[in-house]
Amino acid sequence: MTNPPPSMPEGMTLALDQAKAAAERGEVPVGAALFDENGILITAVGNRVEQERDPTAHAEMLALRAGAARLGLKRLAGCDLYVTLEPCPMCAAAISLARIRRLYFAAYDPKGGGVEHGPHIFDQPTCHHRPEVYGGIGERAAAALLRKFFRDRR
Amino acid sequence: MTNPPPSMPEGMTLALDQAKAAAERGEVPVGAALFDENGILITAVGNRVEQERDPTAHAEMLALRAGAARLGLKRLAGCDLYVTLEPCPMCAAAISLARIRRLYFAAYDPKGGGVEHGPHIFDQPTCHHRPEVYGGIGERAAAALLRKFFRDRR
Repeated sequence: MTNPPPSMPEGMTLALDQAKAAAERGEVPVGAALFDENGILITAVGNRVEQERDPTAHAEMLALRAGAARLGLKRLAGCDLYVTLEPCPMCAAAISLARIRRLYFAAYDPKGGGVEHGPHIFDQPTCHHRPEVYGGIGERAAAALLRKFFRDRR
Repeated sequence: MTNPPPSMPEGMTLALDQAKAAAERGEVPVGAALFDENGILITAVGNRVEQERDPTAHAEMLALRAGAARLGLKRLAGCDLYVTLEPCPMCAAAISLARIRRLYFAAYDPKGGGVEHGPHIFDQPTCHHRPEVYGGIGERAAAALLRKFFRDRR
């Protein structure tokens, strides 16, 4: 695997680092990084479903929960989230509930994604907040990490 | 508000009790109760978004997380969940990820529900597990509780 290109945004580099650390823990390698409205890092975390034995412990959920706890707010209006994989429907809906301003994700996930695939959570008329969405940022590095993880497991 | 009719399943009675307790804490009154495959209660919890300042702390999410922690499993195959309101898309997707066997919910939620409304999470081709779904169980009591809560807040 090659290093991320120099143009990779810092947020995605941090999220990728968390994805790599997740893989080393035996977790599906997905990482997330949350920034406040001034671009200050709030938290960077990786998937912990296996370690915490928690079906909801996706990287995005952990980032939202830790961010809200850190800021003492139940909503993260103005905050931006970087994640290495297109969020699943659970995470996409949580991102909307948390009022995230901008969502940057790396690899697209046709089988499990909920943003550009499946239920297209943000496009539903009942979705009350839609973040700005930027997909494919750092896609190659994130997808390579996921492919390697699943190849090694077979 | 009248008491639940005698035919109310025990699970929904417990979930309604949790919804009432949530209202007393100033939370949107939604409660959930989780049972194992033998019908033994695992946990009953109410919404804690305000108290925990956590946008993901819906009753269903707390029940799934507490249940998985209690059982030491990352999935709750065979378990049944009772909830007083149609789950939102985040919770519906989490219920699928957790492999819940049967979902019983009380009030329908045309504005925010994700099961029979909005993204119809379980009907998506990318949804990998669909629980059996029973809506409208104890609907009147749950809807009355929600109406009273929002009326008192206006």
